[in-house]
Amino acid sequence: MEISTFFPVWERLSSRQQAALSSAAFSRTVARGEIIHNADTDCTGLLLVESGQLRAFILSAEGREITLYRLFERDLCLFSASCMMRSLQFDVTIQAEKDASLRVIPAESYRKIMDESAPLSNFTSEVMAARFSDVMWLIEQILWKSFDRRLAAFLLEEAAIEGSPALKITHEIIGNHMGNPREVVTRMLRYFQSEGMVRLSRGTVEITDERALRRLAE
Amino acid sequence: MEISTFFPVWERLSSRQQAALSSAAFSRTVARGEIIHNADTDCTGLLLVESGQLRAFILSAEGREITLYRLFERDLCLFSASCMMRSLQFDVTIQAEKDASLRVIPAESYRKIMDESAPLSNFTSEVMAARFSDVMWLIEQILWKSFDRRLAAFLLEEAAIEGSPALKITHEIIGNHMGNPREVVTRMLRYFQSEGMVRLSRGTVEITDERALRRLAE
Repeated sequence: MEISTFFPVWERLSSRQQAALSSAAFSRTVARGEIIHNADTDCTGLLLVESGQLRAFILSAEGREITLYRLFERDLCLFSASCMMRSLQFDVTIQAEKDASLRVIPAESYRKIMDESAPLSNFTSEVMAARFSDVMWLIEQILWKSFDRRLAAFLLEEAAIEGSPALKITHEIIGNHMGNPREVVTRMLRYFQSEGMVRLSRGTVEITDERALRRLAE
Repeated sequence: MEISTFFPVWERLSSRQQAALSSAAFSRTVARGEIIHNADTDCTGLLLVESGQLRAFILSAEGREITLYRLFERDLCLFSASCMMRSLQFDVTIQAEKDASLRVIPAESYRKIMDESAPLSNFTSEVMAARFSDVMWLIEQILWKSFDRRLAAFLLEEAAIEGSPALKITHEIIGNHMGNPREVVTRMLRYFQSEGMVRLSRGTVEITDERALRRLAE
């Protein structure tokens, strides 16, 4: 796979910069289960996933592995090159979840181009922002543990009571019923909507996929 | 306060870029308790804290506010300008924790300079990475709830048994004693070290601030 396919900003790099990245990159294959990067390894470098699947996780105190996010074909793993950013001070473990074929760009080679190229730097920020968003979603899952189930069950019950999948109810009132603040109800309903389970409009919550909602509630 | 003081990379911007940022910035004062930014507000812009203190938080399902991080004098708040990055898809609430005096740079003005300046883009990445690290630390606090107390108590007990503050013990053995994986023990011991409570060396954990450790354990 051409290294250029991993970088939407490739055409905005100079030919010298393109050549520097291409010539620094090397191939690596990893077998399912292999730990590619953790706190004890040196800076592994930027990983470009040509095929297979990687997983980034941290450990709970009991040793349970908490998956932060997954990386698929054409994804780019930044945190295996965290040494390249002074302010990134946390450790994640990167493991091959399936046999994977990778291209590796050593951190210092990447850093050098990022230092001079605004497009590459901005692209790298976007990659970090996407991972940050994944992790914030995870935090909310932990903080709101089982709130999704409770809310799904509540909506199904209301629909049964009203005899209609279109509920005339505000997020505030749902919150009052359930003992949760309005903002939390709104966030979760928006998530339900993004998953196609409900449709939201002013003062109305309409159930659009009862089966999915029921699976969640049970 | 000069806007330049907020940007360590200021001298690496062109005079045109410096002028564009300076002229776009405006002043704003906020009173203690005021919500400056949340999911319902439009893009508030980049906030530069001249004085006072801000707090970024999210809500738990029960409506408990979970502080993600704080911002002090000379800090820069990126997430009030999250509209400027496509991949930043989460909402935080920013509140004035003390009366504060701010400079605000509208998101589109900042974005324009960031798009063309690698130094500004890389600096912005570092700011994001620092916040990301804060949030990862919070996740670990949630996941490892009370592990710090248990570990502090364990170290004090061992020191009492051995009659010495310098314990000859590996992280692995501590983990076996406590039913926690080695990595988790190592992370927490490193945190204790950064707080000056212990000193780590190969095969040894030396208690350097027994009082602080005791406060934690109790």
